[in-house]
Formats: sequence, structure tokens, C-alpha cells
Amino acid sequence: MEPQLKLIGTVRSPLKSRADCPKQADEGAPDAWIEIAPEFAVALEGLRAGESVLIFTWLHEGRRDTLKVRPRGNMNEPLRGVFATRSPDRPNPIGLHVVRLLEIEPPCRIHVESLEALDGTPVIDIKPSLAPKSGF
Amino acid sequence: MEPQLKLIGTVRSPLKSRADCPKQADEGAPDAWIEIAPEFAVALEGLRAGESVLIFTWLHEGRRDTLKVRPRGNMNEPLRGVFATRSPDRPNPIGLHVVRLLEIEPPCRIHVESLEALDGTPVIDIKPSLAPKSGF
Repeated sequence: MEPQLKLIGTVRSPLKSRADCPKQADEGAPDAWIEIAPEFAVALEGLRAGESVLIFTWLHEGRRDTLKVRPRGNMNEPLRGVFATRSPDRPNPIGLHVVRLLEIEPPCRIHVESLEALDGTPVIDIKPSLAPKSGF
Repeated sequence: MEPQLKLIGTVRSPLKSRADCPKQADEGAPDAWIEIAPEFAVALEGLRAGESVLIFTWLHEGRRDTLKVRPRGNMNEPLRGVFATRSPDRPNPIGLHVVRLLEIEPPCRIHVESLEALDGTPVIDIKPSLAPKSGF
């Protein structure tokens, strides 16, 4: 099994390089637009501004051959397996972002709050966030 | 961009068919094992039993050409875009599961609580869950 991902959209953000990116959204990520590929616009129906959604990205600058890292790049930390970290360097560099939907601009642009992803980052899925009791 | 996913592990579960699967973990999913592919075992280092982790799966029985569904298969509900649902039928059928790590059996098996995924489901990523204030 080595399925191929479909590109469902692209991040449009003021973050232009990995050095600009905060490590997590609560450290000051900017609002961003996501341009959905036209063939998938119909799959947005039912999303509402104000909702919390999960954005799945493909962190295309991540190194897929990295299996251990120092958390947050801190040289005082011991090496740790990437599955015990949120590093973008990992076998499948999937990013997960919980964001509030600010605006839906038909047919295929959505505006989201505080997205820590580079301009041009591929988007691979969007799901509604579940109630807090479910943990995400 | 159409990157290929790497298989990092496989679910071993008593859930043998899609009809057996609860819609969400809190509706009675069984505990399951995940067999990590040996080449990725080193990436588990640093995970600890008792932690909450995010398991990303590839819902290989999902229909990738489905763009609208009736939520939870309920015929009384209007059709909705798949990005406004958690349906396994979607362009990239990525499953996201928040589970507690029960046990780590070196070198490459982990036991997790309440996983709503079929036996044989490919696992594509594992990340630590963040603090509740971050929303997942």
C-alpha cells in the first residue's frame, strides 16, 4: 500500500519561509486563506463560518527520512523519535491544525484563523472538529 | 504534487468489517494493537504508556470519489459536503483517532485504547496529543 494523496487545496499565507513559522498556532500564526481545487468545492457544502475545523496539510518541506529529532530544535534536549514529537520532519509529513473558520467565499476559498503553515502548503483534508469531550 | 504515503504500521483489531465499526470511539470501539513496520520502530522512542496520542490511519475502504454524503448514513439528513463530515468516504480517506497508549511492546508493537479502525487498516502517522487548551 502506497496510496497517492490528492491535492484538495493550497494555503495562501503571509508566512513565506520555514524560519517565519511559529512552532504552534498559539505562538502568533497569522490568519490565512485556503484555495480549494475547483473539483472539490462541492465537498465544502455544510461548513459554516464560526465553526472549528481540522485542516490537514502536507508539510512539503519536511524531511521524510528523519526518524529522530531534538524537540523544537533545542540542542539541550535529547534525541527523540519523531512519533513522540510534532516535528514536520517525519515519514509522512502530515500537519494537523485546529482553526476557526472565519469566512467562506464561494465557490472555493475559505478564510481561517491562526494557521501555522507556509504559503503554498498543500491541503489534503478538512474535517469538522468534534465536541471538546472527544479530545479534539 | 501527488505524494505517496509510506505505510508506517498496521492496525490489529477485533473489528473485521466496516459494519462492525462504531461511528466514533466513545460508542464502544475495542482496544487494538498497532504493528509498526520495523524500519520505523526507532521513531517510537520517547512515547510512554498512559500518554494520549493521535493515530492517523488510511481508511482504505473509503470511496475516494465521494464528495457528498448523508451524515452517519441517515436518510433523513440532507446531503452534505464530505469536508463538513467525518465520513470515511472522501478524497483522501485519512482517519484521526485520539487514543490512550496502554502499552509499548518493543521493538514495534503498541497497544491503544478504544480504536475505531478495522483490522488491517494502514497507519500513516502518530503524534503526541497537545494540552487540552490547544483543542486536540
